[in-house]
Amino acid sequence: MKKGCPFGTHRVIEPKGVLPQPATKIDNSMEIYDNEILIDVKTLNVDSASFTQIKEEAQGDIEKIKEIMMSIVAARGKHQNPVTGSGGMLIGTVEKVGPALEGKTNLKVGDKLATLVSLSLTPLQIDEIKEIRKDIDQVDIKGKAILFESGIYAVMPTDIPENLALSVLDVAGAPAQTAKLVKPSDTVVIIGGGGKSGMLCLYEAKKRAGITGKVICLGHSEKSVARVKNMNLADEYFTADATNAVEVMEKVKEATNGEMADVVINCVNVPNTEMASILAAKDDGLIYFFSMATSFTKAALGAEGIGRDTTMIIGNGYTKGHGEIALQIMRESEILRKTYEELYA
Amino acid sequence: MKKGCPFGTHRVIEPKGVLPQPATKIDNSMEIYDNEILIDVKTLNVDSASFTQIKEEAQGDIEKIKEIMMSIVAARGKHQNPVTGSGGMLIGTVEKVGPALEGKTNLKVGDKLATLVSLSLTPLQIDEIKEIRKDIDQVDIKGKAILFESGIYAVMPTDIPENLALSVLDVAGAPAQTAKLVKPSDTVVIIGGGGKSGMLCLYEAKKRAGITGKVICLGHSEKSVARVKNMNLADEYFTADATNAVEVMEKVKEATNGEMADVVINCVNVPNTEMASILAAKDDGLIYFFSMATSFTKAALGAEGIGRDTTMIIGNGYTKGHGEIALQIMRESEILRKTYEELYA
Ligand SMILES: NC(=O)c1ccc[n+]([C@@H]2O[C@H](COP(=O)([O-])OP(=O)(O)OC[C@H]3O[C@@H](n4cnc5c(N)ncnc54)[C@H](OP(=O)(O)O)[C@@H]3O)[C@@H](O)[C@H]2O)c1
Ligand SMILES: NC(=O)c1ccc[n+]([C@@H]2O[C@H](COP(=O)([O-])OP(=O)(O)OC[C@H]3O[C@@H](n4cnc5c(N)ncnc54)[C@H](OP(=O)(O)O)[C@@H]3O)[C@@H](O)[C@H]2O)c1
Repeated sequence: MKKGCPFGTHRVIEPKGVLPQPATKIDNSMEIYDNEILIDVKTLNVDSASFTQIKEEAQGDIEKIKEIMMSIVAARGKHQNPVTGSGGMLIGTVEKVGPALEGKTNLKVGDKLATLVSLSLTPLQIDEIKEIRKDIDQVDIKGKAILFESGIYAVMPTDIPENLALSVLDVAGAPAQTAKLVKPSDTVVIIGGGGKSGMLCLYEAKKRAGITGKVICLGHSEKSVARVKNMNLADEYFTADATNAVEVMEKVKEATNGEMADVVINCVNVPNTEMASILAAKDDGLIYFFSMATSFTKAALGAEGIGRDTTMIIGNGYTKGHGEIALQIMRESEILRKTYEELYA
Repeated sequence: MKKGCPFGTHRVIEPKGVLPQPATKIDNSMEIYDNEILIDVKTLNVDSASFTQIKEEAQGDIEKIKEIMMSIVAARGKHQNPVTGSGGMLIGTVEKVGPALEGKTNLKVGDKLATLVSLSLTPLQIDEIKEIRKDIDQVDIKGKAILFESGIYAVMPTDIPENLALSVLDVAGAPAQTAKLVKPSDTVVIIGGGGKSGMLCLYEAKKRAGITGKVICLGHSEKSVARVKNMNLADEYFTADATNAVEVMEKVKEATNGEMADVVINCVNVPNTEMASILAAKDDGLIYFFSMATSFTKAALGAEGIGRDTTMIIGNGYTKGHGEIALQIMRESEILRKTYEELYA
């Protein structure tokens, strides 16, 4: 049996010397290396930015969506959207555990797990696309995938239904980072607060900012804002187009008596919202970009361009215990769980 | 006289509602609004990533470089490279100060200044390109530019020659951020430590990490590493290709006895170095991406992909007092000043 590198570099076909994520093509043959885990895949949860792009390209047509997905995997050996660069995650059952992992992992054949590493680096083979749940970005397939030694995963909880857990785990990084960044009495703006990750961030932000803090939800549609308001997830709510930086600034100014936010968390799924995030924050504020549609240069040059000393963090999808933190919200908040079940499960 | 917005939104032609930096076209007519400053431009200092791209496209040909630069400004009303998205800065003399700025600015007609906001958002008109100093990314022109009310600048120091000051101010954000991020006894890796921003970062890092810390310089060419070694700017030195993540990891591992870095500062001018930066850092380390060639998704998904809890910061070119911090290095370190004069002035 062939020996593998913990990061999966042994699967990289091109370019050489890079890791599987930045690689343009990886080997998706399903014979495992000694430190790999073979997964029998049930469902793909495609990243929101990626799936939005695919649906647009396919003009909503199911067969065309299937075709695009199959061609991505055929070209790259993984489901990494060539336009957005992003992936998603998957649910499946452990089929084989490489011998070199013995004593290193608790996983055993038959365990049901969700991979928490991106599909953009996961060797994947799709035999058949069975069902596409267009509105919740989930795709049932017949196929296999490989989890590398360094790959993170969550064993599926028994008290939370599978589809619900998958939806929550997909965006687990956002609430877990919110929990780390928000301090008591902070003023927090969540841009895209009505979305899947946004709602979890609102919940965590309110918990951490506490009674002396203020959590503000910026939503796009009246509908999502009304939904969040019903759940009482924030202290203030308004609708705005986050690509309109000046509009957002004026509305945050009003909601904060001109003080602006200590922490801004960007959870949208559209480009060109960097500037609104910067203008919503205090001069020495902190911005967390969870949105994969964020442009590095637009953020860096945008802040410099108006002489702002804001700290801007790249939304690392992983932080310690993120799966547990996110799933815990479903146990704590009955209303959020109900909403999540209705919308995403 | 027309009233302007502090951020210059009144100059945006398309798309509407955005700020001048993300705009694809801005108005570069040189009649000022009431809160603008008109500058008689002497020299453009084109951003390194941008100039590298332009030189490559022109295959080094001076006339072709001129053509590309003129066409960028003709299309966008500003010198924002459409491929890299980045700009640079300029030096010039104040020609007019809008009446609404009275009492708000110390600038007066005749003052010599460097704008510290990016050219990627500065209305610019080039009448003539006079001289291109290809090796130091500087271009002398006859032309005018506009500084917005929120635009930052530095009045040129009298004890440091103009070209030298310009070169230092161009990358001022990097050493100033290094000064903020590095703590006593930190292990610091500067990727691209032999470059213009890299050398200043090494100097600041060594000052802040102190005698109990360790500063490691990763350079690309033997030449730049030898230069930095001669100046004694770091504690350890090695050459590596930062696009080869695994090579960098192995070498940092060796230099740190397997402990890896608390702080990694990325100062390269080429793409695909996110993964090397992540692998050079400790699991709970901090990475500062000053390089404008950084990809947001590659960094975010890269860290997640290998389950790393690293904090990754977007290199905001501005931080309070950055101009002063960077110029001060030229006063403190004779040898660095000499090297800077030789290479960039
Ligand atoms: N860093 C990571 O590891 C990671 C992991 C997963 C996802 N993500 C990224 O996180 C982002 C959000 O994901 P999600 O699953 O939460 O998406 P989602 O449920 O689709 O939510 C997106 C939100 O953005 C809002 N929005 C859209 N256009 C807007 C505009 N112009 N102005 C203001 N708000 C606007 C939507 O508002 P309405 O509902 O009102 O229309 C919605 O609430 C995506 O970019 C995704 O790629 C990152
Ligand atoms: N955030 C901001 O506001 C801001 C402002 C200015 C500049 N920047 C950015 O900062 C970056 C650096 O600027 P600079 O002026 O310092 O550039 P520079 O002087 O050209 O330095 C670039 C360095 O990168 C090194 N390098 C190139 N390819 C490499 C590779 N494959 N592996 C390892 N090292 C490699 C070079 O090494 P050798 O010398 O050994 O060849 C050089 O030392 C650029 O991307 C620029 O766009 C950002």
